[in-house]
Amino acid sequence: MEKIKVGIAGYGNIGRGVEKAVNAAPDMELKAFFTRRDPAALQTNTPDAKILRTEDAASMRDELDVVILCGGSATDLPKQGPAFAGIFNTIDSFDTHAKIPDYFAAMDNAAGDKVSVLSVGWDPGLFSIMRQLSLAALPCGSDYTFWGRGVSQGHSDAIRRIEGVANAIQYTVPVEEAVQAVRDGKNPELTTRQKHLRECYVVAKEGADKARIEQEIKTMPNYFADYDTTVTFVTEEELKKNHSKMPHGGLVIRSGSTGDNNHVMEFSLKLDSNPEFTASVLTAYARAAVRLNREGRKGAMTVLDVPLSYLTVEDPSWQRKNLL
Amino acid sequence: MEKIKVGIAGYGNIGRGVEKAVNAAPDMELKAFFTRRDPAALQTNTPDAKILRTEDAASMRDELDVVILCGGSATDLPKQGPAFAGIFNTIDSFDTHAKIPDYFAAMDNAAGDKVSVLSVGWDPGLFSIMRQLSLAALPCGSDYTFWGRGVSQGHSDAIRRIEGVANAIQYTVPVEEAVQAVRDGKNPELTTRQKHLRECYVVAKEGADKARIEQEIKTMPNYFADYDTTVTFVTEEELKKNHSKMPHGGLVIRSGSTGDNNHVMEFSLKLDSNPEFTASVLTAYARAAVRLNREGRKGAMTVLDVPLSYLTVEDPSWQRKNLL
Repeated sequence: MEKIKVGIAGYGNIGRGVEKAVNAAPDMELKAFFTRRDPAALQTNTPDAKILRTEDAASMRDELDVVILCGGSATDLPKQGPAFAGIFNTIDSFDTHAKIPDYFAAMDNAAGDKVSVLSVGWDPGLFSIMRQLSLAALPCGSDYTFWGRGVSQGHSDAIRRIEGVANAIQYTVPVEEAVQAVRDGKNPELTTRQKHLRECYVVAKEGADKARIEQEIKTMPNYFADYDTTVTFVTEEELKKNHSKMPHGGLVIRSGSTGDNNHVMEFSLKLDSNPEFTASVLTAYARAAVRLNREGRKGAMTVLDVPLSYLTVEDPSWQRKNLL
Repeated sequence: MEKIKVGIAGYGNIGRGVEKAVNAAPDMELKAFFTRRDPAALQTNTPDAKILRTEDAASMRDELDVVILCGGSATDLPKQGPAFAGIFNTIDSFDTHAKIPDYFAAMDNAAGDKVSVLSVGWDPGLFSIMRQLSLAALPCGSDYTFWGRGVSQGHSDAIRRIEGVANAIQYTVPVEEAVQAVRDGKNPELTTRQKHLRECYVVAKEGADKARIEQEIKTMPNYFADYDTTVTFVTEEELKKNHSKMPHGGLVIRSGSTGDNNHVMEFSLKLDSNPEFTASVLTAYARAAVRLNREGRKGAMTVLDVPLSYLTVEDPSWQRKNLL
């Protein structure tokens, strides 16, 4: 069987994770990287793959089956997505929830005869699948999403911008009592503060006023003011040793009823590496995009549009025998 | 919007659950029951729906969009399935795992221009979806399925056949240490005995030899001999009071790695009523079958073939806005 020829656009944490996942997939071949940096300066772990400037990507139009877009949602993907769509089948992890409808429209408009699957990953992505499946199974009910325990890059960055802060890592942590109330089918009304805690590990610069830093963190609007926040000062060495991984995870729980009977559905993830797991999900959907396009499907799609049988190397009759 | 016209074949626990779910669905209308009993003797909760003999079902060919087959897997569905397929779009909960490939072939052969979605429910069904999704996301790993705590009808029946037993209920219970080892990513090799316990609540007939009954249960091949089994004798009143519901549930857990990083995906169900929850899932897939057939799709399918966007009343743009 001919292998699926894959390109990767962007070589940050997600891009490196996708590289690993594609190289581990028996049915895929990594053929090209696209970068906005100087291609000569990019060191990848796949010496056989070409490295091209992003603006030269179209020259590989006939040599790739799919390009996995590994840019960020804030500024990269809104341009990168429509630029690659239509030339290649694409996959991306666009995760600005409120802007997904607009991004979907832009990608659908650009996709032409190709398939673009957007907002793939775990949230949006696997968690979206769970919200849809649980709504389907329990139309009368409520669902809850909790994130963590995991590192939030946005919140870590916000702390690092405070004067006197040398470095920082922020963990989002679900409040255990809230999770338990949901699991118990109590359908609680939960405020922001009741759902998640924020734990901050901060390295202060020499001579900085730690009390003032802690106060600035805890009162920062949007990021921390609405949460119970703890601040722990650590040394740079402690931060490197204990907080240098990028774990994440979370839960989707729906409780609902059928008449007098109650039911609880729960999906949870515990991830040692958020970017590597996201990359692995992107790679599975890249396989699906290629298969769908070969069958004549085109346009923008999300995880809710892709039949699950397309995701794995194994064929449908194997799946029926072994997974049903 | 015209409502989806639904028929129900079989009026046991699942059939009554489907009746409830269809009557609660804003986009569906329950039009007919098909029964092997005397239609005049069948009391349903939907007075407006016709009641016909199973052999007269084809007379409703042009009046129904889908028939939900609520027979059992052992003897009903192998005949009922192919008899209804091709005349109607069908949904069923065929759950004899080892025979699914043969049943799929029989249904695909019979389906003609209609859609037949088979083996819908929670296992097979939602658990199959989780096994496929977790295999896709973590190709390097192992998955584990645990059932319970819940009532197994087959095991309860087996106890009731023992001489001196007036009534009995059997619960299948996952072994907590085994579940924890899997959650901890230890990828344990588990024997049958290490995965599940069996708890039996037994009403003995007056004067029966309880020690002999307990011994017969615990040594029964296939059903109990390979498990740690507890037997508790109770009165008929206690059994009715404490053990008359049909709860069930279970877990699918996959742990796997991407290079040096480990990840755990877990899906769990805690159901007060196994048949009502199964019925609710069947009803969601009935909606999907009708939509797929209206788009020209035909043949046998499983939950792995049906895009998730087809399952709920809400349209795809609502789903993208609210669930992604």
